[in-house]
Amino acid sequence: MTDRLNHFTVVDDCSRSQLEQLLELAHEISLDTRAFENTRTGRMLVNLFYEASTRTRVSFEAAAKRLGMHVINISATGSSVEKGESLIDTFYTIQAMGPDCIVVRHPEEGNATKLAELAEPGVHVINAGDGTAAHPSQALLDALTLKQSFSDFSDIRLVMAGDILHSRVARSAIKMFLTLGIGEIRLAGPPEFMPDDASSEGTAVYADLDSAVRDANAIMMLRIQKERISGLDIPDADQYHREWGLNAERLGLAAGGCRVLHPGPMNRGVEIASGVADGSQSRIRRQVRNGLYARMALILTLTRAQA
Amino acid sequence: MTDRLNHFTVVDDCSRSQLEQLLELAHEISLDTRAFENTRTGRMLVNLFYEASTRTRVSFEAAAKRLGMHVINISATGSSVEKGESLIDTFYTIQAMGPDCIVVRHPEEGNATKLAELAEPGVHVINAGDGTAAHPSQALLDALTLKQSFSDFSDIRLVMAGDILHSRVARSAIKMFLTLGIGEIRLAGPPEFMPDDASSEGTAVYADLDSAVRDANAIMMLRIQKERISGLDIPDADQYHREWGLNAERLGLAAGGCRVLHPGPMNRGVEIASGVADGSQSRIRRQVRNGLYARMALILTLTRAQA
Amino acid sequence: MTDRLNHFTVVDDCSRSQLEQLLELAHEISLDTRAFENTRTGRMLVNLFYEASTRTRVSFEAAAKRLGMHVINISATGSSVEKGESLIDTFYTIQAMGPDCIVVRHPEEGNATKLAELAEPGVHVINAGDGTAAHPSQALLDALTLKQSFSDFSDIRLVMAGDILHSRVARSAIKMFLTLGIGEIRLAGPPEFMPDDASSEGTAVYADLDSAVRDANAIMMLRIQKERISGLDIPDADQYHREWGLNAERLGLAAGGCRVLHPGPMNRGVEIASGVADGSQSRIRRQVRNGLYARMALILTLTRAQA
Repeated sequence: MTDRLNHFTVVDDCSRSQLEQLLELAHEISLDTRAFENTRTGRMLVNLFYEASTRTRVSFEAAAKRLGMHVINISATGSSVEKGESLIDTFYTIQAMGPDCIVVRHPEEGNATKLAELAEPGVHVINAGDGTAAHPSQALLDALTLKQSFSDFSDIRLVMAGDILHSRVARSAIKMFLTLGIGEIRLAGPPEFMPDDASSEGTAVYADLDSAVRDANAIMMLRIQKERISGLDIPDADQYHREWGLNAERLGLAAGGCRVLHPGPMNRGVEIASGVADGSQSRIRRQVRNGLYARMALILTLTRAQA
Repeated sequence: MTDRLNHFTVVDDCSRSQLEQLLELAHEISLDTRAFENTRTGRMLVNLFYEASTRTRVSFEAAAKRLGMHVINISATGSSVEKGESLIDTFYTIQAMGPDCIVVRHPEEGNATKLAELAEPGVHVINAGDGTAAHPSQALLDALTLKQSFSDFSDIRLVMAGDILHSRVARSAIKMFLTLGIGEIRLAGPPEFMPDDASSEGTAVYADLDSAVRDANAIMMLRIQKERISGLDIPDADQYHREWGLNAERLGLAAGGCRVLHPGPMNRGVEIASGVADGSQSRIRRQVRNGLYARMALILTLTRAQA
Repeated sequence: MTDRLNHFTVVDDCSRSQLEQLLELAHEISLDTRAFENTRTGRMLVNLFYEASTRTRVSFEAAAKRLGMHVINISATGSSVEKGESLIDTFYTIQAMGPDCIVVRHPEEGNATKLAELAEPGVHVINAGDGTAAHPSQALLDALTLKQSFSDFSDIRLVMAGDILHSRVARSAIKMFLTLGIGEIRLAGPPEFMPDDASSEGTAVYADLDSAVRDANAIMMLRIQKERISGLDIPDADQYHREWGLNAERLGLAAGGCRVLHPGPMNRGVEIASGVADGSQSRIRRQVRNGLYARMALILTLTRAQA
């Protein structure tokens, strides 16, 4: 494995030093965004989205445009995708337009990696979410958000809570934070939402949110899809909020100044109380802004001229 | 109230001098558009549309692109809006991308104003239509169209006809034209479509279109939504056209050279006859072009560097 | 007829020398694309699509952006088109924004030509497909693909196979290739898919694909819409593939090195076998890339300053 990053589809493909360089560059961009604008003028990024998305699509679009790139958006609705063309043929079609980056979101696991293997030299594939498997650029912005609060990843005692099982955000974040040497990851959520291999090297499973939160200095709440609550031993969203939601009282059990993260979009009053989401310890809006910086750093790194 | 315009959500927030400056700038742009191109290079405008629209969205997009800005379009279809995120959280998400302008269209009244209150310094909110309440940039282009034909607003005897009650275009236009010192506004339309407060300072209600039109030198026909006709004492669209449509004969009752306006999209043969829409007195296509100039002026004014 | 190309709606409007100049320019662009980038900075292209499309819309969008142009996409979904505005009023609305090119796809025949007649000086209309009538920019990229393999069009013995009747691609390609002096065009397909005037000056109809392919040096397979197979004396897609699909064995009957083309999107295993589509004689991906070059050449030619 060369140290050059060619695609960004799963966290496993990245070394610690590659991730640290990405975070360092994202941090520099956050300090002086204008200095990095228009450094990729005339290059092209294509957003190929087979699932609806505002925040991720717009974040990549804004990042690329800030860099001076052309952006072409393709969504599965209103496209020849509907005429039954295969994902691979669509990919070749897009690749033939001469893009520098192709950002792919697809409901099935592993597709971004499969496309990366078909990419020509000079075409860089970025995974913007594949099924419940991975969402590595979200993990990158989460890592940047943590980096802004902690001088060292080993100081972090992070709680990740909610629907771990179906969360590509959780899967990529756990992998990335462990690679970056995080101190501790505590997982908490309804047993039905906990993967079999949840308790593993570097992660521990907690039976309830109160004990997980105690003494933690960072908490990442995951989005719960309301329709999934019906599969639980929990009657409704209110009850879910009481048992697994982050409210002010529960946050009070954590270490002083504990940071609160959420990948969004939030269900206020379900997995997180509004007061916490908008409170002084929340870094949720900061995460969105960091998404811009992290994706600018990612695009810059992938499209860097070969030495 | 400072004389600096920070947002553009309701006409009431604008002084006469602010409106006159906007119109003067729009007029200058109409004379030499190229001179204003690329004067906002690298800045960003986001179109956040919760209702379908071609003309307004495209008009803002074209205006911003002419100025050299990046444009990101977000429509309620195919977005995390569908995942039930609140309008406010979506707004914060977009704001975190670092845009200069956010153009909002929303089916509920007052939302653009509410968002403007949440905007960070340097982020300017423009209302592109909220429910039946306001559509101030449409009023601005209508005012520009009138300005091109009349040396003084006080010379204008304007008829506004049709569905006044449900028209955000009418509401904003009446307010703006009165602020600009229009001579006379005559309202005409089926009684079911006339607001309770229609007859007010500066406006008068007419019982039929013929008497309203007599001697007028400008007529603005409003779009009638066909499904609303069923709520009237009028059997069908043909009958509506006979009673409340602008045809050549009726236009003949007005002053010579009377201008005809319509915000579009038109129902030809319902509120307006095709011959009138395409006739020599029509300024309807001119209105669309003025939309480009008015919105360029608006964006330029809002994003002007603080003195 | 001047030799200046003002619109590009039907092949019949183009002289042989105009087509040859377009192909020559497209060829030059293919050799050094970067040299042509940003030669139309600040100009504007609007994609007005009343039918879903990925490849054609994206191809025009990429071509225009490579040239430095602003691009505005309008699709019939989510637009005032749905409010029932006429095509002509929508066209005037778009024209009023000051675009240089308007690319139109519409399900009804002849509409692009009709709009071209309404265009102001300086506004150039491009037909991106009107009903089953014409798709001339697809024909242009097909011609470019053939030009890359044959030193002279008169050397080409081309088979065009499948649903000729409903194919705007076939109609435009036949016209263009004949104008360019192609050696021979052989048409093959189920009798229900063969137009009455198929056998004409320059074209011959073959009763089966084997005899058509024999000794041919280029084969263009057409997309078959699966729902149309039910109108045939053919039980299903498998049977269609056996009778009218291009597989390796059948391709073996052609001249050595015979080129294979397909406008896409492909139905693999129906009109074309996967092995042929991805094989060494296939020029299908090359066609997509040529679409970019052909459309850059087209836009450059249409927007060339008047002498």
